[in-house]
Amino acid sequence: MSHPIPTLDDIQAAAARIAPYAHRTPVLTCRALDAMAEATLHFKCENLQKVGAFKFRGACNTVFSLTDEEAERGVGTHSSGNHAAAVALAAKLRGIRAYVVMPETAPEIKKKAVESYGAEITFCEPTLASRETTLASVIEETGAVEIHPFDDPRVIAGQGTAAIELLDEVDDLEVILTPIGGGGLICGTAIGTSGNGNSATIIGTEPKNADDAYQSFVSGQFVPQTDPNTIADGLQTSLSELTLSIIRNHVSEIITVTEEEIVNAMRTVWERMKIIIEPSSAVPVAAVLNQKNGLTGKKVGIILTGGNVDLEKLPWI
Amino acid sequence: MSHPIPTLDDIQAAAARIAPYAHRTPVLTCRALDAMAEATLHFKCENLQKVGAFKFRGACNTVFSLTDEEAERGVGTHSSGNHAAAVALAAKLRGIRAYVVMPETAPEIKKKAVESYGAEITFCEPTLASRETTLASVIEETGAVEIHPFDDPRVIAGQGTAAIELLDEVDDLEVILTPIGGGGLICGTAIGTSGNGNSATIIGTEPKNADDAYQSFVSGQFVPQTDPNTIADGLQTSLSELTLSIIRNHVSEIITVTEEEIVNAMRTVWERMKIIIEPSSAVPVAAVLNQKNGLTGKKVGIILTGGNVDLEKLPWI
Repeated sequence: MSHPIPTLDDIQAAAARIAPYAHRTPVLTCRALDAMAEATLHFKCENLQKVGAFKFRGACNTVFSLTDEEAERGVGTHSSGNHAAAVALAAKLRGIRAYVVMPETAPEIKKKAVESYGAEITFCEPTLASRETTLASVIEETGAVEIHPFDDPRVIAGQGTAAIELLDEVDDLEVILTPIGGGGLICGTAIGTSGNGNSATIIGTEPKNADDAYQSFVSGQFVPQTDPNTIADGLQTSLSELTLSIIRNHVSEIITVTEEEIVNAMRTVWERMKIIIEPSSAVPVAAVLNQKNGLTGKKVGIILTGGNVDLEKLPWI
Repeated sequence: MSHPIPTLDDIQAAAARIAPYAHRTPVLTCRALDAMAEATLHFKCENLQKVGAFKFRGACNTVFSLTDEEAERGVGTHSSGNHAAAVALAAKLRGIRAYVVMPETAPEIKKKAVESYGAEITFCEPTLASRETTLASVIEETGAVEIHPFDDPRVIAGQGTAAIELLDEVDDLEVILTPIGGGGLICGTAIGTSGNGNSATIIGTEPKNADDAYQSFVSGQFVPQTDPNTIADGLQTSLSELTLSIIRNHVSEIITVTEEEIVNAMRTVWERMKIIIEPSSAVPVAAVLNQKNGLTGKKVGIILTGGNVDLEKLPWI
């Protein structure tokens, strides 16, 4: 199906729609990280968002965009991660059913989170094919409305609300960095920024070991992610045609970082900022700390995307 | 020496004095913790303060309260923890020397923090007697002005600024909880609250294994802390006559919690709120999660005091 590209108006409508449910997350600064990055950093803390991730914005906007007739059918998605919890909580808040397909190998803590929001979980094998066919049969059976994690203008508009809040709070940002998984966040960020007449440059960041967006961006054509091998478990997805087209139009650069840079950046944020970020969130931080090309001296916004980490298994212990 | 008791005016003056240097820390909420506590919780995040602790407020107020003549002599203190880093940073910001006496057994990370702010460290044996005599001789030699961690109205006034900000941001708080170490924070909090005509009850919290304030409070006379045995390393100090007198006049109750309750509360905050708190910060959280007597259904403020933790050694691993 072909999707319209969301506009600034869509993002502003999303901001109003999710305001009663989402946290307006704080924007933090840290002198120590500024000194390391040789830049002025403003961190939009979506790790402190409901369900511990920005994903709640897009899921909430989509669930509350549904007509009553659609909502009555319930919503469905497949995800092993933050999007599953986000859809489950948004559905609970609207008082409708949620059907979540999760690989049986998903971490216990994520299964429990989705369950705790009252979603009905169907387990499948840990392959994309199994996820998709299982979800298709769940939807066929229940009539639920699918909420894709990123290939949907309502989801992209919801994710863009974080940038709107960041720009509202911090004047004259010159650059905004986000990680890129499926591309929903960076697309919403880019539209929310340029649509608002703000001249900040949008830079995407990715693990070198899962650099499909980078490959797609430089080659000018869709390159799928086939064999991701990164600790940044939220960034293993391929883009969609929709998100790639928005990225090509609005994003100026994609920076890639190593696994070691990601772990070091994650630990630095924990140590110096006293907040918990997951490896995916550390990717743009790794970029400003290690790949400073063009960022030195700049006023930089960074969206910290999530904080869901197994506290028994820290990558530096 | 006998100290005057600070007033609301002192706290408001402190707030203006430290505003250019301190973070106005966010107040966070968490539905999951509200459900566990059966209360509405508002967390003032001093773990996100400069140097990772509320201690920066009192140290900063005191350093910037000095006359130019006093400041020229430099400042001195003994501390193995957050107060040392706070004094060192405040002195650096004023451009004056800081002399810090630390036990040679202090964690490397704390030594490095104090050093990184440019303070001159003198190591001593890990006893209160050695700290005090070493500091006395450093002060004799250098002429530095001593900044006590809590037995000083300027320090207490500075610590009270956190409560002022919390009350400014959240209406109608019914209860405010803080931990009690030397008592500086709870005294500033109590004066900042009642002096402002706010009727919130002030409740102190302490580890059962370091309950000198509780013992002093119920017996009506000063009981020193002689053998603390708690993971909450910031709460091992005795009160002073000054802080005890303010506590007796303004604090309605002191709740004590077990070591297991502290570790569980700490982990719960990390997991659900995605912020890093140190064990001392977890003490009031443990109180609302486990010792709910009278707190159920209430609108509660909690000051999270610090986030300085050795990330190699987590108490649940």
